[in-house]
Amino acid sequence: MGHLGQNILNYELENGVNMCCDEDCSKNEINTTLIQYAVKDLLTGLGEDINREGIIKTPLRVAKALCDGTRGYSQSAKEIVEGALFPEAGVDNTKVGHAGGVGGLVIVRDLEFYSYCESCMLPFYFKCHVGYVPSGQRVLGLSKLSRVTNVFAKRLQEPQRLADEVCFALHQGIEPAGVAVVLQCTHINIPDTVFDTNHKGLVETLVSSGSGVFENKDADMWGDVFGLLKFRGIDKDKVHVKGSLDQYWCPSLSSKIGEINPIMVTAVSSILKSLGEDPTRKELVGTPSRYVKWLMNFQYCSDIDGKLKLNGSPWSGEVNFDEKEVHSELNLPFWSQCEHHLLPFHGVVHIGYFISKGCHPIEKSLLQSIVLFYGFKLQVQERLTKQIAETISPLIGGNVIVVVEASHTCMVSRGIEKFGSNTATIAVLGRFSIDLAAKTAFLESIPK
Amino acid sequence: MGHLGQNILNYELENGVNMCCDEDCSKNEINTTLIQYAVKDLLTGLGEDINREGIIKTPLRVAKALCDGTRGYSQSAKEIVEGALFPEAGVDNTKVGHAGGVGGLVIVRDLEFYSYCESCMLPFYFKCHVGYVPSGQRVLGLSKLSRVTNVFAKRLQEPQRLADEVCFALHQGIEPAGVAVVLQCTHINIPDTVFDTNHKGLVETLVSSGSGVFENKDADMWGDVFGLLKFRGIDKDKVHVKGSLDQYWCPSLSSKIGEINPIMVTAVSSILKSLGEDPTRKELVGTPSRYVKWLMNFQYCSDIDGKLKLNGSPWSGEVNFDEKEVHSELNLPFWSQCEHHLLPFHGVVHIGYFISKGCHPIEKSLLQSIVLFYGFKLQVQERLTKQIAETISPLIGGNVIVVVEASHTCMVSRGIEKFGSNTATIAVLGRFSIDLAAKTAFLESIPK
Repeated sequence: MGHLGQNILNYELENGVNMCCDEDCSKNEINTTLIQYAVKDLLTGLGEDINREGIIKTPLRVAKALCDGTRGYSQSAKEIVEGALFPEAGVDNTKVGHAGGVGGLVIVRDLEFYSYCESCMLPFYFKCHVGYVPSGQRVLGLSKLSRVTNVFAKRLQEPQRLADEVCFALHQGIEPAGVAVVLQCTHINIPDTVFDTNHKGLVETLVSSGSGVFENKDADMWGDVFGLLKFRGIDKDKVHVKGSLDQYWCPSLSSKIGEINPIMVTAVSSILKSLGEDPTRKELVGTPSRYVKWLMNFQYCSDIDGKLKLNGSPWSGEVNFDEKEVHSELNLPFWSQCEHHLLPFHGVVHIGYFISKGCHPIEKSLLQSIVLFYGFKLQVQERLTKQIAETISPLIGGNVIVVVEASHTCMVSRGIEKFGSNTATIAVLGRFSIDLAAKTAFLESIPK
Repeated sequence: MGHLGQNILNYELENGVNMCCDEDCSKNEINTTLIQYAVKDLLTGLGEDINREGIIKTPLRVAKALCDGTRGYSQSAKEIVEGALFPEAGVDNTKVGHAGGVGGLVIVRDLEFYSYCESCMLPFYFKCHVGYVPSGQRVLGLSKLSRVTNVFAKRLQEPQRLADEVCFALHQGIEPAGVAVVLQCTHINIPDTVFDTNHKGLVETLVSSGSGVFENKDADMWGDVFGLLKFRGIDKDKVHVKGSLDQYWCPSLSSKIGEINPIMVTAVSSILKSLGEDPTRKELVGTPSRYVKWLMNFQYCSDIDGKLKLNGSPWSGEVNFDEKEVHSELNLPFWSQCEHHLLPFHGVVHIGYFISKGCHPIEKSLLQSIVLFYGFKLQVQERLTKQIAETISPLIGGNVIVVVEASHTCMVSRGIEKFGSNTATIAVLGRFSIDLAAKTAFLESIPK
């Protein structure tokens, strides 16, 4: 019992486990409560004060988001397809023309979703292109291709299995000549060398799945699919080959796990169980440790001076405001974890400050270290921006502008699902607050 | 009573009107039922058989979609904001730095929504950029900027009022130094001359609204907003000036309305009432007539020969398969109305056929007429593709490939809200079904 989180233990002692409960609603309530206790253990393990105002409701938000994000376990693709099959003449196999006569391929492209990675429990984004060749004189309502995909997206997943499950469910439901599914998946990844600015901080993989006339991946019919996708940046030759050795798309699978807090690991196992998953399933056995390892990147640490030795290399630049020049340090990457939802947000930081001609700017690596330091903790973007500005300000003479641009997983992997949205925050200190021309010059130096 | 639709009349006679009903749920049920009767009147007015299998459930789907798409009338922005304000040190007005100390502008960009045009009841798409400058040491959860926008989007709207309402609600809720809202709105538009291929079939407008430090549209603070938006194709100088004369963004407002079926007009008025709107509100007085005028573009008509005189100009081209060449006629625009949801879908058609060297291709205007003819009726994309292929096939020797690419409003303005998705369908007749090289050549000729 030593590994069991204290909060969970308390709850189970008070309320019992394996209670007989037939009603879904109170079962969900118990699960949500159990997840909240587990999240409290995780926050405690990170060194956070779970009663701090900003995070006091985080356990509830995380529990709700996780239950919502895995609602696919209780949904049925069959029910979605039934009742949305419409009779349509001319899509049988008797006419001239391949694959169902003149009613050939129907494909819906560029559907955006997120799912949860079964290896590390982080949300991953994917763009789905899903098509089928009608048969039996009936077609499916277009939105159902999206809805069925979402049933399987809202589970703990791995790209290839996700594609296979969507393909299988649609084939069973529509009984068409064939189904084709192509997924472009993107997973957050903190690169080993964060100073490599060419690294996008993301891992991408492309998978496909086919049934019927698409069963054989070299079938001619795939030509129609990729013919209509090639303008969307999809190269058939880059599709992951099933069972090939490069199967570890999740970065957590290829990195070593050191010593891990057992209470936190137990807490994650308990979450998996509450979501209806089996933590002993082969693919999930290491998931709690991998998630905790990710989380520990964001362990509480207030000691920037001790950690970065900011006073070690004082800036030698000077500012003569008669010959003022704005120096821009652009696109410094960062990774952070939203303290309201325990979900990643990441992006780039742009920093501007005044410098006299001929003077050396402050070392870029120092600025990058400051940016990373404030990213690697539970954060909100507004605070991150402020902390970076306030830390840099005394180093470069008090006049600084900081812009943070970030994609928030919490804007995507929860109810609102606003794909493609991006948040920008600005902090302005000293002269930049009155010198409009300098501020404009800096903002214009930021690349798209 | 002559103007009252028969179906509505029947319902009201059977069930009574103005029933005393305090429970929202049965009220909604009555409203949904009333809308269904009204939609049956509209379908009948279009010359459709309301018992046809493809559209028999259309009234129910339309009623559900309209109730869902106007749910903002019963939502409260205040409730959304309350409970999502987080304490955050350092964003007060006492520190050096403009507009709230180092906690400056926070802006969420590229949020996608749809709303319903109050002038013609068609859905319109908009991209929203919404920001504020925190004050009083608190920040708002980022997703709430999106949620509040959606409350006002889910009503019958006009772009400027929508921006003003979002701005006002956020200002009241957050009590910040100021709120800035920029909306890029897009409305479907059938151009007068459909053969103008430069016309995108859309009308766009850009509006903004500001409070507090953004109250004055020339305030310096707007520089921060547009500085961070300029990379997103937004030009400050193109923002619509409030109260300016070019106020008719909805195309229906600048076109004349001729004779209109009064039963259909009454049906739309009844729908407005069921949605909780006042059909006598100044902006809505002409809406039923304008919506019916739009709908009548899609009146049932089966007589393509009588309408287009397809036999008037026989094709003079020849095909010698030894010197076969694929001729592509690309990007023929079309507009149609989805028969499952009574919502527009529009896009382009690409047509390929064989022709011998030196021969003239078939007249483009004839192909465009065929495309438009099959678009202007209640449709599904699969059938549209098949009908175009089958009509063109005998004209050009039996070998034809047709690709239709379309954006469906029903994929956006209903539950799934999949912005940016696009559906492609292919019909292949004759030689194209066995000649893979010819098909590939045609698919590759389709531009992005």
